[in-house]
Amino acid sequence: MNTMIETILNHRSIRKYEDRPLTKEQIEVIVKSAQAAATSSYVQAYTIIGITDQEKKKQLAHLVGNQPYVEKNGHLLVFCADLYRHQVVAEMENVDITDSLERTENFMIAVIDAALAAQNAALAAESMGLGICYIGGLRNQLVEVSKLLNIPKHVIPLFAMTIGYPLHESSKKPRLPFAHVYHENGYQTNKELLKEQLHDYNQTIQQYYKERTNNERQDTWTSQMAVKFTTPTRLYMKEYVQKQGFDKK
Amino acid sequence: MNTMIETILNHRSIRKYEDRPLTKEQIEVIVKSAQAAATSSYVQAYTIIGITDQEKKKQLAHLVGNQPYVEKNGHLLVFCADLYRHQVVAEMENVDITDSLERTENFMIAVIDAALAAQNAALAAESMGLGICYIGGLRNQLVEVSKLLNIPKHVIPLFAMTIGYPLHESSKKPRLPFAHVYHENGYQTNKELLKEQLHDYNQTIQQYYKERTNNERQDTWTSQMAVKFTTPTRLYMKEYVQKQGFDKK
Repeated sequence: MNTMIETILNHRSIRKYEDRPLTKEQIEVIVKSAQAAATSSYVQAYTIIGITDQEKKKQLAHLVGNQPYVEKNGHLLVFCADLYRHQVVAEMENVDITDSLERTENFMIAVIDAALAAQNAALAAESMGLGICYIGGLRNQLVEVSKLLNIPKHVIPLFAMTIGYPLHESSKKPRLPFAHVYHENGYQTNKELLKEQLHDYNQTIQQYYKERTNNERQDTWTSQMAVKFTTPTRLYMKEYVQKQGFDKK
Repeated sequence: MNTMIETILNHRSIRKYEDRPLTKEQIEVIVKSAQAAATSSYVQAYTIIGITDQEKKKQLAHLVGNQPYVEKNGHLLVFCADLYRHQVVAEMENVDITDSLERTENFMIAVIDAALAAQNAALAAESMGLGICYIGGLRNQLVEVSKLLNIPKHVIPLFAMTIGYPLHESSKKPRLPFAHVYHENGYQTNKELLKEQLHDYNQTIQQYYKERTNNERQDTWTSQMAVKFTTPTRLYMKEYVQKQGFDKK
């Protein structure tokens, strides 16, 4: 196993950081790594906003659901799906691309492009001994986040990423069984087999929580998922996405 | 610069491979690397389908727009956004999660989860000396792809990835200027500045194509984007996505 795969397999979320900002050089390496990711038809449909203003970090920490590590870290990045620059391109080239911009296909392209770039950024940071955490909570209040970050139409902030020097060790959460996630030559829809695999996985997860909490936490993956999905969240998302000019047709 | 960042920055798409299949061990490392990526609230909302059946590869190569390297490679992966297993979870836990599954928020979660996993897979492969190419053309004909791969409701094939031993060197395509993609403390909406940056970038791109083609290809980034976005493609996408049970509200 090479060191790159070791770094990949060793990923865990870090939620407490030294009070030590990243250098400009580190940020540049991380962003350039993000940019090196594959991009659909060369569109590069994302923008990364780095937050250094301490007051904005504080407000973001509040907006994402009071997560102190969004305020206290080495650096904070916000990854946005972005077709605004393509609107600028349309002005330069004197063409009308409104129909294209509003298509679900291009919404998917921008989201995928941004995510591929983000994962490169995460791994570049981790390879430098830094820890990271994705902040999906950014989507809790995107209207307010958009105001705070001057987000124009045709841009959607998707998630944030905290980066910094780790102040704690965290444990690696076991993933779904290989055979459950990797199918051969077609999707394996047999529910009985899937349920068996999930029962096995639940036992792994139960053991994992027991060991971490001195037998106190009793939890399985399927029960966590049932709780999460029983109450839909971020109900405003479709309206917000369409107001931003995406995913309309 | 460490070897991981070197590998990340060195990415380029490879479209011609030796006739030499990946070993089971290689595939396992690549898929486990994918699984190690961060996942929103632990949902792990993706499935990876590996295609070994040569006839299916041939059909897929045709469906994505006659790309021979989709047939001839070391391995072919199809990355799917997947909430089917969460439907299975709902049966196990006896809860109703239909409302949640249909939300735009969970569509975005599944797409992001799948993309983060895919980029880990790409880098794991590249770190082993293999080349990869993302195949967005998979979305050209998702209805037919879904039939071929037995895709159930609540699953969307997002893109494929060819992997294999490279049979050619390809060049690294220059990315947008750093300052164009990385903004500080808020989105930089000033169109005049963006246009200036794009003019500079166009010159870089022109030079890049000239050097590669003995001065034959005259092209800029903005002209490519204008062509791409002037004619919307994959017009059926919204209908398909919603038929699969995603992004409905």
